[in-house]
Amino acid sequence: MAVCEIISVGTEILLGDIVNTDSQFLASRLAGLGISVLRQSAVGDNRGRLLTLLGEAAQRSDIIILSGGLGPTSDDITKEVCCEFFGKELELHEPTLEKIKSYFKGKNVPMAEINTKQAMLPRDCVIFPNSNGTAPGLAMEKDGKHILLLPGPPRELKPMFLESAAPYLSRFSDKVIISHSVRTFGIGESSMAEKVADLLDMENPTVAPYAKDGEALLRVTALAGSEDEAEKLCAPVITEIEQRLSDYFYGVDCGCIEEAVVALLKERRMKIATAESCTGGFIAKRITNIPGASEVFDCGVVSYSNEIKHKILGVDSAALEEYGAVSEPVAAQMAEGALRISGADIAVSVTGIAGPDSDSTNKPVGLCFIGVADKTGTEVLQINTGRRDRDYNRYVCASNALNAARLRILKKAPKG
Amino acid sequence: MAVCEIISVGTEILLGDIVNTDSQFLASRLAGLGISVLRQSAVGDNRGRLLTLLGEAAQRSDIIILSGGLGPTSDDITKEVCCEFFGKELELHEPTLEKIKSYFKGKNVPMAEINTKQAMLPRDCVIFPNSNGTAPGLAMEKDGKHILLLPGPPRELKPMFLESAAPYLSRFSDKVIISHSVRTFGIGESSMAEKVADLLDMENPTVAPYAKDGEALLRVTALAGSEDEAEKLCAPVITEIEQRLSDYFYGVDCGCIEEAVVALLKERRMKIATAESCTGGFIAKRITNIPGASEVFDCGVVSYSNEIKHKILGVDSAALEEYGAVSEPVAAQMAEGALRISGADIAVSVTGIAGPDSDSTNKPVGLCFIGVADKTGTEVLQINTGRRDRDYNRYVCASNALNAARLRILKKAPKG
Repeated sequence: MAVCEIISVGTEILLGDIVNTDSQFLASRLAGLGISVLRQSAVGDNRGRLLTLLGEAAQRSDIIILSGGLGPTSDDITKEVCCEFFGKELELHEPTLEKIKSYFKGKNVPMAEINTKQAMLPRDCVIFPNSNGTAPGLAMEKDGKHILLLPGPPRELKPMFLESAAPYLSRFSDKVIISHSVRTFGIGESSMAEKVADLLDMENPTVAPYAKDGEALLRVTALAGSEDEAEKLCAPVITEIEQRLSDYFYGVDCGCIEEAVVALLKERRMKIATAESCTGGFIAKRITNIPGASEVFDCGVVSYSNEIKHKILGVDSAALEEYGAVSEPVAAQMAEGALRISGADIAVSVTGIAGPDSDSTNKPVGLCFIGVADKTGTEVLQINTGRRDRDYNRYVCASNALNAARLRILKKAPKG
Repeated sequence: MAVCEIISVGTEILLGDIVNTDSQFLASRLAGLGISVLRQSAVGDNRGRLLTLLGEAAQRSDIIILSGGLGPTSDDITKEVCCEFFGKELELHEPTLEKIKSYFKGKNVPMAEINTKQAMLPRDCVIFPNSNGTAPGLAMEKDGKHILLLPGPPRELKPMFLESAAPYLSRFSDKVIISHSVRTFGIGESSMAEKVADLLDMENPTVAPYAKDGEALLRVTALAGSEDEAEKLCAPVITEIEQRLSDYFYGVDCGCIEEAVVALLKERRMKIATAESCTGGFIAKRITNIPGASEVFDCGVVSYSNEIKHKILGVDSAALEEYGAVSEPVAAQMAEGALRISGADIAVSVTGIAGPDSDSTNKPVGLCFIGVADKTGTEVLQINTGRRDRDYNRYVCASNALNAARLRILKKAPKG
């Protein structure tokens, strides 16, 4: 099995200015190609340190994939240092220069002279065209070691990897890794792990628990000579997990709870509406993240004040006054209002204290009421995250609202 | 200056199942402490490979900070391997076991037996209490080398770093790094870099350009004996950059465009409303990301169908029919509708084709109309990202809408 390392180059990564999403993307795609990632590293835009790391990586791995540092500015040195490492010279590649020029022409922007640097390439490399930017990627080889260079911006790196780098790398794939994630909602990682403790000791497929965004997942990963074989190893284990986690299981490889909800609504030909206070549009945003959401979603209201809750959603002013905006009756009326004005089949509402501070009522930060309304009636679920973390609370409240909608559609009782 | 490495442990990182946000957080905080991060690495939950990496890191660095692999399950081995590396034994730490037990008690959940493992600690370590989970962190030292262990979940790692690890690390700070980011909107990285080309060659402070989320930024970083000195090095350079980028500059260290907009609205005591189609609540979500947004935001409507655009926002059915939902008149009427029903001082709207596919009209994916309305009138800005990337298009359209609101408040003309 070919062994690979991922190196991210950029002082902005070492200083913590940006999150390194490239490594995650590359790692996940390489796993799919059956290429084992031994290590991920990040170094600054520093010639000496990058040369050292290249030397170490070439000792361990057949393939080194670097991202970042292909930009036009003087601190972008990845290509130059990698060519120095392999003893290759850079020369102007006219067709690439033409492409860069026409890229700027298409955007009606003059090309900055420094962009010429991006058309300097080693003579015998394989060029990876950049469909979303100016810096081409490339692959070069020496003594059986391969170096691939990709641009840092994710929207340039991702299509370039899929279109050019993955086909280049297919020569290294002899084994295939297939990996599935079993998603759950409403159970902690430890409790989930105990329910499947014996499966965690399996060798092929492996079963690994982890927590992500407030949810517990199990990753089932098989290694085999073909996709078919790998799938056959995974299937019975996934079925076993589904049975053991029945109450909490919501999907395999379904990405996230919003994807599961949109798929379920499509399947049932139903529409959903949202009425949000503390989540401020996050539920609507997550539903509409999913391509084709317009089939299942027409209408969302962000009612961030009492007045708007009353005026647009028809929430009783008396209820707002008596119980406060963060209350069971208001959550119920928000959901009912959204159902009424949207004409949807189901509506969810959220009203809560996202934090970091409480409102004037001194209700606890993390308290949230979730309403679900459809023609059969309205239910309100109360949760309390117990945390003061605004981002976390908004995410978890939105997730719980989506899950509550899912359970209502499936006619299951919600879990607090 | 003390030199540090960050090691992330977890097969889920090497397989690309999760994005490594811990490294970014740690790197940014270490920079603030004046500790230089030489390298970031990620390895799997693998004893041999982790031992090798620890050996390499200890050659180069004084401090090794590891995150991940402190969980209760059998694949969590970071603590065990680090103790092996330092030749230290683990023993049950009763006060920690009591804390873990009371953590579960507080959540009304029985403690799983496997959680006992998390109370096994080396005798002479410094314990970092975990206020958001069960696994304590720790620091241990041998022959002048320090190993710090932190849990993987960001919401456990972040507070633990700030409360316990940062104070522990303060002994290594002799110099201070101060770093400021100068944010721009509407200019590309290359063009921005050309405007400040001479500044990019400075040594202290350094000025580095980069692109992030469709925006170009400049990072100004100074190293000095005290915060004051470092700030004095940065200040004139930042002023110079602001002057050169005047049209595009929107703030220093202001985080992002929504933070700038919320701050501006607060300063002017104004309220904003939103009417969103293709961004599906993303603008409202981004505004309400900012704590205290309720001072400036009451009302957002996600009108994802023509019917809801008409019914809730009062968009003319004739306009929808004649020009289609993705059109200048509809964007204008959406903004005017939001202004009217919300009673806000300014309203923004977005209607466009997020992709990946077009709608029935075959308008190009990436086309978007942004409306801005206030009592002085309504303007519509047309943009076309030229990309088929749904997430990118939604992000950029939302950003442009926020920037259009900002420019209107400042009485500047919008830039397409």
